[in-house]
Amino acid sequence: MADDALLDDDRLTDDLPEDGGRPDDRIDDERMDEENTLKPQFVRRVEDALEEGDDGAVYDLVEPLHPADVADLLELFDREDRRKLASAITDLMTGDVVAELNDYVRDDMMEDLPAASVAQIAEQLETDDAVQLIEDLDEEDQQAILAELDDEDRIAIESALAYPEETAGRLMSRELVAVPEHMSVGDLIDFLRDGRDLPQDFFEVFVVDERHHPVGTCQLSWILRTPRSVALADVMKRDQTLIPAMLDQEEVGNMFQKYALISAAVVDESGRLVGQMTVDDVVHIIAEEAGEDALLMSGAGDGDINEPIRDAYSARVRWLVANLGTALLASFIIALFGAAIEQLVALAVLMPIVASIGGNAGTQTMAVTVRAIAMNQLTRSNTKRILWRELRVAMLNGATIAVLIGLATGVFFTPLLGGVIAAAMVVNVLVAGLAGVLVPVIFDRLDQDPAVASSVFVTMITDSMGFFAFLGLAVASGVVG
Amino acid sequence: MADDALLDDDRLTDDLPEDGGRPDDRIDDERMDEENTLKPQFVRRVEDALEEGDDGAVYDLVEPLHPADVADLLELFDREDRRKLASAITDLMTGDVVAELNDYVRDDMMEDLPAASVAQIAEQLETDDAVQLIEDLDEEDQQAILAELDDEDRIAIESALAYPEETAGRLMSRELVAVPEHMSVGDLIDFLRDGRDLPQDFFEVFVVDERHHPVGTCQLSWILRTPRSVALADVMKRDQTLIPAMLDQEEVGNMFQKYALISAAVVDESGRLVGQMTVDDVVHIIAEEAGEDALLMSGAGDGDINEPIRDAYSARVRWLVANLGTALLASFIIALFGAAIEQLVALAVLMPIVASIGGNAGTQTMAVTVRAIAMNQLTRSNTKRILWRELRVAMLNGATIAVLIGLATGVFFTPLLGGVIAAAMVVNVLVAGLAGVLVPVIFDRLDQDPAVASSVFVTMITDSMGFFAFLGLAVASGVVG
Repeated sequence: MADDALLDDDRLTDDLPEDGGRPDDRIDDERMDEENTLKPQFVRRVEDALEEGDDGAVYDLVEPLHPADVADLLELFDREDRRKLASAITDLMTGDVVAELNDYVRDDMMEDLPAASVAQIAEQLETDDAVQLIEDLDEEDQQAILAELDDEDRIAIESALAYPEETAGRLMSRELVAVPEHMSVGDLIDFLRDGRDLPQDFFEVFVVDERHHPVGTCQLSWILRTPRSVALADVMKRDQTLIPAMLDQEEVGNMFQKYALISAAVVDESGRLVGQMTVDDVVHIIAEEAGEDALLMSGAGDGDINEPIRDAYSARVRWLVANLGTALLASFIIALFGAAIEQLVALAVLMPIVASIGGNAGTQTMAVTVRAIAMNQLTRSNTKRILWRELRVAMLNGATIAVLIGLATGVFFTPLLGGVIAAAMVVNVLVAGLAGVLVPVIFDRLDQDPAVASSVFVTMITDSMGFFAFLGLAVASGVVG
Repeated sequence: MADDALLDDDRLTDDLPEDGGRPDDRIDDERMDEENTLKPQFVRRVEDALEEGDDGAVYDLVEPLHPADVADLLELFDREDRRKLASAITDLMTGDVVAELNDYVRDDMMEDLPAASVAQIAEQLETDDAVQLIEDLDEEDQQAILAELDDEDRIAIESALAYPEETAGRLMSRELVAVPEHMSVGDLIDFLRDGRDLPQDFFEVFVVDERHHPVGTCQLSWILRTPRSVALADVMKRDQTLIPAMLDQEEVGNMFQKYALISAAVVDESGRLVGQMTVDDVVHIIAEEAGEDALLMSGAGDGDINEPIRDAYSARVRWLVANLGTALLASFIIALFGAAIEQLVALAVLMPIVASIGGNAGTQTMAVTVRAIAMNQLTRSNTKRILWRELRVAMLNGATIAVLIGLATGVFFTPLLGGVIAAAMVVNVLVAGLAGVLVPVIFDRLDQDPAVASSVFVTMITDSMGFFAFLGLAVASGVVG
């Protein structure tokens, strides 16, 4: 049973450095491929052993894996096999494995465990990982688990949960090394040598005043290079990047990137040091924030392959319904020109081309704009310049495509119709460039995530304008009637 | 003149920790906003001072900025103003600023400098930054700069350039701390204290054998916690993640994320330690790799707002031409049903809806699949399960949209036409789900980047199938004729 394993303290406390598994050796062995993912042959052997009910064989196969790879293995299976696997490797289901699991998979596995077992896992984790473990559970389960924790852990987790999701206060680790300014390098080393309650890994030491406000920071490499007698005040860097506890995780990620941080102090509103963010946690945030734009722009929601089908459906269908609305608007515009189409069916044949290319051009510009906004590269200071840049690209793109489709249409239909479609194409690609910049910029100014809402609007504009420009120009130019 | 500044050694060597600027103080001052970007008012003041030719005022405004913010400021301006700014703040154009510049902006600025100046900047940078500085220049310029470098730097840079772009060997830093196994903690601390040639910052010490093969690694925090007399062999972790020099940067990023690394040893084919990757460089790779999928899927190429217009045009127009091809294929299918459309113009009005919703559904599935492939979450071991999952989501989505559009069409046109469009919608959304998974998976198996090529094919399939299913079913069902 998985919960027996998770109740067993011994299995949860082995987080000494020596227990990190052997990622290096495994790069070219029979378990991992060159991309450092589990080989299908290996996964199949685990599957076969599970099917035969040979838990011993399963255990032997999984035992040499790094906790992160055990988590990967669990994620590869469906719900039922995952349960079987967890109960076959109870000894190996450490806190480290649980911390590495995909959110959805972890929540799914935790829901089956009694509150006391989840609490026992939470106690073995650092605060930030413990918070992740329980933040998505419903209120009632959370309370049941919190009640099982000892006071210190409960208070730490409750204080994290008091901050909004995706802020530094929620995500920070409360374990850190903070020392007073009057220490010397030697004092500090002695303090660390007999220090209990130190975090497992840490990369800098924060120097604080008597109000616990940060006054400086020392990277460990500076301490190691400095003679014992030197005062910390002479080694530390006074200027440091402080992260307000209410800062959004996307901005935390941007700060880590911009200032090449390894760790940074988190301060509350009064300026007190309340925690630290370390880059190993921030890389996940950076990857998530950078990767989610593609998913958000397509309306795929979280876009996690482990998301329950119900959630994936509800996220995606909402967007499809919105797009149905824009498609109906486009249809309405086509309907206005029904008589023209009846006269010249070539219009129906050609009209999707103008809309489609406009949609693509708009999506390109929008993707560039959304990315630049997310990276803080596009600000009020250069919006005009970037808009002008995009319009020039759009002019070149529009002209190129217009010539191609104009010539083809001129040959297969009539030169006049070729001229009409070329003109409509130029108009629509220019409109697409304009919309591709302005729609995300406007949403950003309105404090809306430009990646979420822009697509529907840009598509609506390019679709409608595509049909309107082409059919309208066709009527105006006298191609029909 | 900018090149005078860059020739001045003094200005390039100030990379002591104290010189990091004051990011913390600036969060709420008049220069930076709460997202840690330069305030438009501040940028405008710099602009105004530049216009008035008041270089002193410009200097005073820029001087308190962190190098990363100076780089941001340069990027905000167009080419001409950037030049003016650089020459007004020559003293502040340090190697740190140059290293933080966007690739395109840096290349543009470097092209104007004589080889000797670029060489002098390169010498002040760590190898990895120096390589970035010159890797995109043309062969001739590269040679001219390399000839100006001293032997040690030239050899280091040439050996980096010998590795392919975007591999660990190209990106790694050659500065690291490697010590023999027989050392004690005390020996190591003494070595570090009088060590010259140490990297500016480092986060772990690599322990090597006499062939310079890594045998273990010590995080600095473990060293600081351990008494002097303890042997390094008893502190170090023998199992470490080694990065092959030929590993692609995307996989390097995945390894850092998966194993929560701060730094890692890079080894050549014979297993010799040749460099290290540190997480502050890897975060840029992770952000770039995660963010580029949205750009690649839209066909926006690098999608950098600083990319020259010519390059942006050539990257994007290629994709638009490819999409013109798929749009022409769709038009050809419509043309097959010209007679039906002539009879019933409602078909022309409604047909884009089926194609458009199919396209959106396909893009959603494709975005999820591409992301899962990039994160190594979708492997041969679970492709079938994920395909089945996506088809179930597609069935739910298709059914929902089919009911909505079927009813609306039934009311405004005829019930039979409502049935036709509903059936076509279900078919096309299912096809979209299938294509959204299979197209990227197949490209991945063929060792092609799924983000680059998938869109064109998925769109082609959903467009063509949308028109074909709707018009074909209309003819088959006897709605027309």
